[in-house]
Amino acid sequence: MAVTLDTISDARRRIAPYVLKTPLLRLPSLDSALGCRVYVKAECMQITGAFKLRGAMNKLLSLSAEQLARGAVAASSGNHGRALAYGARMLGSSAVIVIPRTAPTIKIEAIRALGAEVVLSDADRRFAVAERISRERDMTVIPPFNDEDIMAGQGTAGLEIMEQCPEIDTVITPISGGGLLSGVAAAVKSVSPRTRVFGAEPDALPRYSESLAAGRRVTVERHPSIADALVSNTPGELCFPYVQQYADGVVPVPDEYLLKGMRLLLEEGKLLGEPSACIGIGAVLAGRITVRPEENVCFLISGGNTSLFQLNLQQ
Amino acid sequence: MAVTLDTISDARRRIAPYVLKTPLLRLPSLDSALGCRVYVKAECMQITGAFKLRGAMNKLLSLSAEQLARGAVAASSGNHGRALAYGARMLGSSAVIVIPRTAPTIKIEAIRALGAEVVLSDADRRFAVAERISRERDMTVIPPFNDEDIMAGQGTAGLEIMEQCPEIDTVITPISGGGLLSGVAAAVKSVSPRTRVFGAEPDALPRYSESLAAGRRVTVERHPSIADALVSNTPGELCFPYVQQYADGVVPVPDEYLLKGMRLLLEEGKLLGEPSACIGIGAVLAGRITVRPEENVCFLISGGNTSLFQLNLQQ
Repeated sequence: MAVTLDTISDARRRIAPYVLKTPLLRLPSLDSALGCRVYVKAECMQITGAFKLRGAMNKLLSLSAEQLARGAVAASSGNHGRALAYGARMLGSSAVIVIPRTAPTIKIEAIRALGAEVVLSDADRRFAVAERISRERDMTVIPPFNDEDIMAGQGTAGLEIMEQCPEIDTVITPISGGGLLSGVAAAVKSVSPRTRVFGAEPDALPRYSESLAAGRRVTVERHPSIADALVSNTPGELCFPYVQQYADGVVPVPDEYLLKGMRLLLEEGKLLGEPSACIGIGAVLAGRITVRPEENVCFLISGGNTSLFQLNLQQ
Repeated sequence: MAVTLDTISDARRRIAPYVLKTPLLRLPSLDSALGCRVYVKAECMQITGAFKLRGAMNKLLSLSAEQLARGAVAASSGNHGRALAYGARMLGSSAVIVIPRTAPTIKIEAIRALGAEVVLSDADRRFAVAERISRERDMTVIPPFNDEDIMAGQGTAGLEIMEQCPEIDTVITPISGGGLLSGVAAAVKSVSPRTRVFGAEPDALPRYSESLAAGRRVTVERHPSIADALVSNTPGELCFPYVQQYADGVVPVPDEYLLKGMRLLLEEGKLLGEPSACIGIGAVLAGRITVRPEENVCFLISGGNTSLFQLNLQQ
């Protein structure tokens, strides 16, 4: 089993009844600010508000009936937890989501509203708590990125992009552990080798920029960032080789450009993306990825789970 | 000359090089709140941020070369002025936009940025001032709605809706003077007589609800409303008969439901519409239009020109 055009295509057939084929939108109102022909893959409109449902559904659908009956567990306060809670409910399974005590009440409530059991823990113990629950209750751990079924599931977004607009010259996605970029890059390069694929990560956590430069996985020091969905401090062991092989590069982006990107997308594009989701736009605004006026550039807007309250804070 | 499938189709061919075919988006995340299968025609993504460019372009393109050389004038602080400024520039013509002194600086600057000449006036004298400029400078007045070229131009949005999704059962648009609804209803009923078409207007200015009930054009008293793009206090003389003939009804909607609609569209749909544009969603939320769970309902989101500052004010 590996992340290939075949496994990504299989994932696509498998998850089709449960996920949206999100729109690929041409947004000419952003062209002058970004210096290219702007397209967005609106995963902010995906069910549960983020691309994460693709991978979570593909993983859940790979489990046996017996495993599904026992349920799934994950440590996540964000989009992965939400996706898993939704997916487990769709399949008549159950989910336990381990959430840091410090997470906003609204995120906890959103996951509870999807029928999942919420276990609160200290932030730095949440993975250990998830493992313990997995052992004690014989539930399957669903990892957020470091898993080939998850990576193939996320890659389905890449297949859709090239099918919806084969003229795309460049795809830019956010990157944290690497589940999304590994899958999307494998998919895009398989069907369109000439298309460039980049990742954008927070300046505060340049785990991929440093790892790619070093030629091996590097763990970076944790620094605070507005990108609350891009918090891994090291590349996923399974993801890293795919990013090395298929991606044209990963660039670090300062926080201020995420917010500029978010405002641009909302005010000119009329689309709401969460700060982490706008990091690709930020990468071009910051000059970290060079684009040409006639280039068709697709920004994958990975999620839209941000409150108006958060918006206010970030002006 | 009248507003028919022929004139609307002609308008569409004429304006095609200058306007976007905006996306028709399926937004299942709004289904449960609205009790139907939700689609939106995203005119908030139209060039200049509103559907108004359709009518303004069609009108400008109906002028002679001589008329175009002398320029166009309109009284508008909002989307019509912006559309006209843009259209005049596209055609190498010139535009004078008469704006109330009380308009926000940001709106004045947006129109100036499009190359139009701005003339400030007292709010209640702006139409008289536009007429005077038209006489003195021999410029063509471009009316905001009461004109068959304008109505046919706006109707192109209706043609696109039925072409993009022939299964649409119901279309709901905002209504003020009636330029949009008259054109859209004529288009939709011509190609799909079974599809219902409704208008939604502010409770504070029920000019169409009262006029349709009376069977003649009624002028209503002015009351303040958050719907700053829906301020006519009487139906357009040319628009009214089309609304009578083709629309299935016009319903008044309280301001609070516009804001609820706007929040729903942004938080769940991830799309930014200005308050006036969300009045159709408000009409269903308020129970003013009855829909069924399996019904395909298309809300025409007429514009997205609202600032984050305005958003904050309206929470």
